[in-house]
Amino acid sequence: MKQFRLTIILLLLAAAAGAQEVNFYPTNWWLGMNNPRVQVMLHSKDIGKGDITMAEYAGVQLEKVHKAENPNYVFLDLLITGAAKPGNLSFTVKQGKNSRTLQYPIGARRKGNGKDYAKGVTSEDLVYLLIPDRFSNGDPSNDKIPGLLDQTLNRDSIYHRHGGDLKGIIKHLDYLQDLGVTALWLLPVWQNNMPDRTEHGYAITNHYRVEPRLGTNEDYLALSNELHNRGMKLVQDVIYNHTGLFHFFVQDKPMKDWLHEWPAYTQTNYKDQILFDPYASTTDRKKLLDGWFTPMMPDLNQGNPFVANFLIQHAIWSVEQFGVDGWRIDTYIYNDLDFMNRCNKALLDEYPQISIFGETWVHGVPNQAYFTANNLGDVPFKSNLPATTDFQQLFYGIQETLTKPFGWTDGVNKLYTTTAQDYMYRDPMKQVIFLDNHDLARFYSVIGEDTAKYKIALSWLLTFRGVPQLYYGNENLMTGFTNPDGWVRLDFKGGWPGDKENKFTSAGRTAKENEIFNHLRSLAQFRRQSSAIKTGKLMQFVPEDGVYVYFRYDGNQTIMCVMNTNTTEKTIETGRYSERTNGFKKGLDIPTGKTYELNGKLTLSPMSMLVLNLGV
Amino acid sequence: MKQFRLTIILLLLAAAAGAQEVNFYPTNWWLGMNNPRVQVMLHSKDIGKGDITMAEYAGVQLEKVHKAENPNYVFLDLLITGAAKPGNLSFTVKQGKNSRTLQYPIGARRKGNGKDYAKGVTSEDLVYLLIPDRFSNGDPSNDKIPGLLDQTLNRDSIYHRHGGDLKGIIKHLDYLQDLGVTALWLLPVWQNNMPDRTEHGYAITNHYRVEPRLGTNEDYLALSNELHNRGMKLVQDVIYNHTGLFHFFVQDKPMKDWLHEWPAYTQTNYKDQILFDPYASTTDRKKLLDGWFTPMMPDLNQGNPFVANFLIQHAIWSVEQFGVDGWRIDTYIYNDLDFMNRCNKALLDEYPQISIFGETWVHGVPNQAYFTANNLGDVPFKSNLPATTDFQQLFYGIQETLTKPFGWTDGVNKLYTTTAQDYMYRDPMKQVIFLDNHDLARFYSVIGEDTAKYKIALSWLLTFRGVPQLYYGNENLMTGFTNPDGWVRLDFKGGWPGDKENKFTSAGRTAKENEIFNHLRSLAQFRRQSSAIKTGKLMQFVPEDGVYVYFRYDGNQTIMCVMNTNTTEKTIETGRYSERTNGFKKGLDIPTGKTYELNGKLTLSPMSMLVLNLGV
Repeated sequence: MKQFRLTIILLLLAAAAGAQEVNFYPTNWWLGMNNPRVQVMLHSKDIGKGDITMAEYAGVQLEKVHKAENPNYVFLDLLITGAAKPGNLSFTVKQGKNSRTLQYPIGARRKGNGKDYAKGVTSEDLVYLLIPDRFSNGDPSNDKIPGLLDQTLNRDSIYHRHGGDLKGIIKHLDYLQDLGVTALWLLPVWQNNMPDRTEHGYAITNHYRVEPRLGTNEDYLALSNELHNRGMKLVQDVIYNHTGLFHFFVQDKPMKDWLHEWPAYTQTNYKDQILFDPYASTTDRKKLLDGWFTPMMPDLNQGNPFVANFLIQHAIWSVEQFGVDGWRIDTYIYNDLDFMNRCNKALLDEYPQISIFGETWVHGVPNQAYFTANNLGDVPFKSNLPATTDFQQLFYGIQETLTKPFGWTDGVNKLYTTTAQDYMYRDPMKQVIFLDNHDLARFYSVIGEDTAKYKIALSWLLTFRGVPQLYYGNENLMTGFTNPDGWVRLDFKGGWPGDKENKFTSAGRTAKENEIFNHLRSLAQFRRQSSAIKTGKLMQFVPEDGVYVYFRYDGNQTIMCVMNTNTTEKTIETGRYSERTNGFKKGLDIPTGKTYELNGKLTLSPMSMLVLNLGV
Repeated sequence: MKQFRLTIILLLLAAAAGAQEVNFYPTNWWLGMNNPRVQVMLHSKDIGKGDITMAEYAGVQLEKVHKAENPNYVFLDLLITGAAKPGNLSFTVKQGKNSRTLQYPIGARRKGNGKDYAKGVTSEDLVYLLIPDRFSNGDPSNDKIPGLLDQTLNRDSIYHRHGGDLKGIIKHLDYLQDLGVTALWLLPVWQNNMPDRTEHGYAITNHYRVEPRLGTNEDYLALSNELHNRGMKLVQDVIYNHTGLFHFFVQDKPMKDWLHEWPAYTQTNYKDQILFDPYASTTDRKKLLDGWFTPMMPDLNQGNPFVANFLIQHAIWSVEQFGVDGWRIDTYIYNDLDFMNRCNKALLDEYPQISIFGETWVHGVPNQAYFTANNLGDVPFKSNLPATTDFQQLFYGIQETLTKPFGWTDGVNKLYTTTAQDYMYRDPMKQVIFLDNHDLARFYSVIGEDTAKYKIALSWLLTFRGVPQLYYGNENLMTGFTNPDGWVRLDFKGGWPGDKENKFTSAGRTAKENEIFNHLRSLAQFRRQSSAIKTGKLMQFVPEDGVYVYFRYDGNQTIMCVMNTNTTEKTIETGRYSERTNGFKKGLDIPTGKTYELNGKLTLSPMSMLVLNLGV
């Protein structure tokens, strides 16, 4: 009889465990981290109504159990000391007569303790940004996942899912590597179980599960490993500011102040200025920081320490779990900047070489620099963000150069003057430069589909200061304006089984597309071996008569870049640049392979750019 | 016989003295200066070939006699200690058998030892910039001066002299004071003995003599005294960077390196960026700093310590001699910045309250801030210049507001965002704001002679942060574009005897001109009594729908400024501004005298601005 009753109890326990799954966030952790503490969130119906204890485990202490306002959440503060060994922590949850035991894995770290991986994406790299749903469909079996809110699958609609995935990306790494790409930046890969517009991935609903339509956590790891095996790198896109409305911790909030909430829906004013404006009102400031990004993306309260820990830990977990090299932070300016500094520091403390850049879609170098490590002294806030997506070089640099006539402050003079303002940054070489991205009109469209201009743009991108970033389709003349933004998020042709056109092969590209592809490829491949471009200095000369000359140089190599933004031929005197050309008699133009003599005069074709490797 | 020979010698000496006048620069100096040292330049044919000694004078030492490369110059280093009393220093110049004695006056300082005068022009002031040759002719007898190179006198030509003078300005101080002006800034008053284009005064040929066509040194002192008697102030315009080609020390250089000289004429490239650009070439930098401003204006070598002393002493002499209150430095960016820092410091050491602002005709707050006392930390150069002429507020502020439609970065949003960048300045309240000046198109012309817009511009100018500066004719709708710049330097009608029109009187102004005059006058007179505008804080709100709202406020007063840049009527909710409007039920609009209720909604006329004194 006793025996019988015990069996009943065990069966009941098993039933309870099955009915009420307990989810741990993070799902697992490691020994030997720089920060020995981790705060684990437990989410399960009424779990906070029970008592939680941890079985003794050498080297690990359960420092504190926090019961949240919502009984469905408990937070455990763990201290994992150097004495601990890999294994499973064992937690017992007692509630009345019921009791259940839960396992939490703590494992060995990747080899290298945060130093031999997470290497950082630098000016030595060429980054390729892509949208996983729109690049290539490597596994049609995951195109639709039963149970998810968005059940669309329709390549004819820019708003619906198209079926691209991680396996599709892995399939095209040869292609990317041949092009000269060294790092991939994917739009966010975490689950977006939202009713619509899930293609972009910025509305996370589960931070610890890869979006199943893109693949599994294992697929993400496989992509990372495959990249690393090729000497390539992975950039992860992360959103701290907001999350998807259908996130479990939004639908079932742990605490009243988990989100920034308003009496009526209130959108952020998107005005970064407020954060440094000496004259800002607190009303505007609150709206900027606490307003929602969209009705579908609630604003997280980073001032809540449990939210802060959740976000920081997810960052560290991602890097440790998947070996991420670079870190791109979405909508940087709407975050709580004090939190961001702590968050960045936590990541850099664990991974000293990781590169971090934030999205600063702002206007003006003083704006962008404020959010970046800068040379400002006596200001209320000092950012530790190493770099940003350099919208200034785009909007007030290369875009002006190729869309406006030359003038005292216009055309290529704007590129020159914006670059001169680099004095504000601590390290401008870390800034990420680009021609377009998933939120912007395709640059080729912006310049009126003019291939001469486009070649200049690509030559600039691959030789200028900073970390160059391509957007998928840059290499084959993809077009589109953001009316709406879906039109700049079209499929890469050839990425789907049965596609009529295949832009992954030269045969599938038009002559014009191949001309651009080869132009880009020759520069990208040259760049990989060019110390002057990868790590050398920049010197720029005042543009004259629409001609802009800059050099990349170091002790071993000098690259002379000569941009003629006129629609007419121009001749320049090379003597003006003798500071850098001295001693060189000729230069090899990288994209064309032609040799140019440096004997006093250099004649430039209309709307063209030379990238001369001097002395060669 | 002995007696006879002595007489002969004395007669010869007298003749020599007459034939070879010795000029001292500075012409005189003072006891009790903060810096007890002064370096006096002596200029006279072959004076360097003789021996110079100083008769004993209690408290004064001749520390060193520098003989220049050119025998026509000698520099004397004097130390004037606290023991000295006013009088004449006596120098003896012996050359072979000849000997002559020269007197050099050292006097008592103005009362107040640099603290009770040179009060500084601040945000409490309203500055009026005028061109002495073009404002009013108070003394026709000095219109032409025999012996000067430019003998033009022709009011029909924008390039010729028109006869305006200091006495003409003094005659109209009642007018200016009634308008609400509290400080005058005159284009440079020092002698410009140049063959042509002498109207602007920026080609100095003698730093110690007032341009005789404007009057005498005594007239300049009289103007200063008259201003001070009225509680008004005087701003002096000074050029350190260059001088007139016909300056005595250019035509007869003291030393080989007195000027920056080039194998062939080389003009500055006018590119301020070079000074902070981390990537600048030394070639461009040399051209910027050492290139000439124009062929008529050679570049002074401020790296030569004798040049540096000459310039610094002229500054101090001007303030001590004439009681100057504010100091405007021409073409600041082309100067040697290290010299400028020493120069500014020397002036501030003597006159702690003097205000100094430099002309920075540049594009971008990072550019302007670099030349000003700023909040930059780790940069190669730290400027000590307290303020600049704020071209950014003009070009990227009020001008954009009134010439471009409202957009995310355009129209009045540009004014808002440029102002937010004030975080870069150490003290933006010292910045000088303006609508136009002698080098720029008249603002009324820029905005298409639209009086509604012009009223907004004037309301902004007189209520915004900084030191407001009017340009003569702003008050009576003078027009003109700089094609060439003479067209913005026309005569003030009524300033000359016999002028048919007289804009100094309401009877002489048209109805439209009086409307503007009265609008400006009401704001200027209100401003004189408004603590909130003069010394209060600024708060600005994010512009919405083309409406920009800012407040000036202190513990005693709140001024609500509401700018509607739309061509249609707009209604705003006052609740949004409750941070500042809280507790106020109404406001008195200063320009119109109308009272507005603050009961939730405020309806704004198309293209209009309210300046509401709240609670009144």
